[in-house]
Amino acid sequence: MLKNSADVSKATVDRLPLYFRTLRQVQSEGIEIISSEDLGRRIGVTPEQIRKDLASFGEFGKKGVGYFVRELIRNISEILGLHRNWNVAIIGVGHLGWALANYRSFSSIGFTVAALFDADPAKIDQYVNGLVVSAIDDLEKIVKERDIHIGVITVPAHEAQDVANRLVAAGVRGIWNFAPVVLKVPEDIWLVSEDLSVGLSSISYYLSRNTK
Amino acid sequence: MLKNSADVSKATVDRLPLYFRTLRQVQSEGIEIISSEDLGRRIGVTPEQIRKDLASFGEFGKKGVGYFVRELIRNISEILGLHRNWNVAIIGVGHLGWALANYRSFSSIGFTVAALFDADPAKIDQYVNGLVVSAIDDLEKIVKERDIHIGVITVPAHEAQDVANRLVAAGVRGIWNFAPVVLKVPEDIWLVSEDLSVGLSSISYYLSRNTK
Repeated sequence: MLKNSADVSKATVDRLPLYFRTLRQVQSEGIEIISSEDLGRRIGVTPEQIRKDLASFGEFGKKGVGYFVRELIRNISEILGLHRNWNVAIIGVGHLGWALANYRSFSSIGFTVAALFDADPAKIDQYVNGLVVSAIDDLEKIVKERDIHIGVITVPAHEAQDVANRLVAAGVRGIWNFAPVVLKVPEDIWLVSEDLSVGLSSISYYLSRNTK
Repeated sequence: MLKNSADVSKATVDRLPLYFRTLRQVQSEGIEIISSEDLGRRIGVTPEQIRKDLASFGEFGKKGVGYFVRELIRNISEILGLHRNWNVAIIGVGHLGWALANYRSFSSIGFTVAALFDADPAKIDQYVNGLVVSAIDDLEKIVKERDIHIGVITVPAHEAQDVANRLVAAGVRGIWNFAPVVLKVPEDIWLVSEDLSVGLSSISYYLSRNTK
């Protein structure tokens, strides 16, 4: 039923987790069928966009009826690969790394924070959310032992490229970078850079248009 | 020179800060003119997308030459409203709030973290990045006194709607929400909800397609 999705745009892929999260909330409210209009209103995108995004992956929903919530959740989960378990390591247990280690939404969608690393002796061997902080020196060994698929980089900018190189050499397949620096990684490594100023800039954009 | 931009899509607006940040890096490397191809390669979008995005706002760059880096930075900054100063308050000084209060990129693009709030007596009167943590009870008073434009919500999910209501009543115009909950705010308030699982889900999506 799922189409080959090689040509799906990044913008579409980025909207899928929002659909997924909103549908789970809809499901928790006991709703079994939802129209693209209702779903769009909740997410803040047009119903046309939702229909177009989902059509990239196959035929979902029934014309004139709507989407079957449980089925659509299962399908989006499969599209996003959330039915697998992904092991995640967080490198840099500062405030941001600590916050991410405690972010409950990750485990609810199939990500297991399986390792934490820091270079600071005061942090090594401490527990965060039940998981011990390992020495960064042991990164290669532990990434292999715990079958880490994704590395989350929350170290200062000037350390980030070195950490990325070590993660790649140790065998991770994806990197989620929070350091404000453009990282270079091999082509077969999937890199997502999170820029926390994007959200604020988008607010600034809209406020400048509506503030006297 | 800037066009009326009422019809610009959210996806375009969300890409502008990436252009802005990348152009600043380009500028710091001493580059004065850049082609849409080079810019696209650095950001990870197609040159067509860049040309289309920028054309929504006016005529930038010179065919066959490229974009003048300094001029484009100034224009995007103006489009995003970053030439103004926006006062930001962070509500909830847990690890995430603390990390955001220390995020240097905010001040570099014109946002001033001007107030921090928490309900925990152990945190009140502590200093974070040179700014004192105020009692949440004083929210309305301080938001008015310090002319806060944007509230950043980093409290637990079950407290977020109440905080949003208080921020709106106190006069903020924009809300940046990190709590994993869908907030209801009046139509004239600009709300951006940050979902940290989106980045991970996008990595999962690509890894599932390329991992045996």
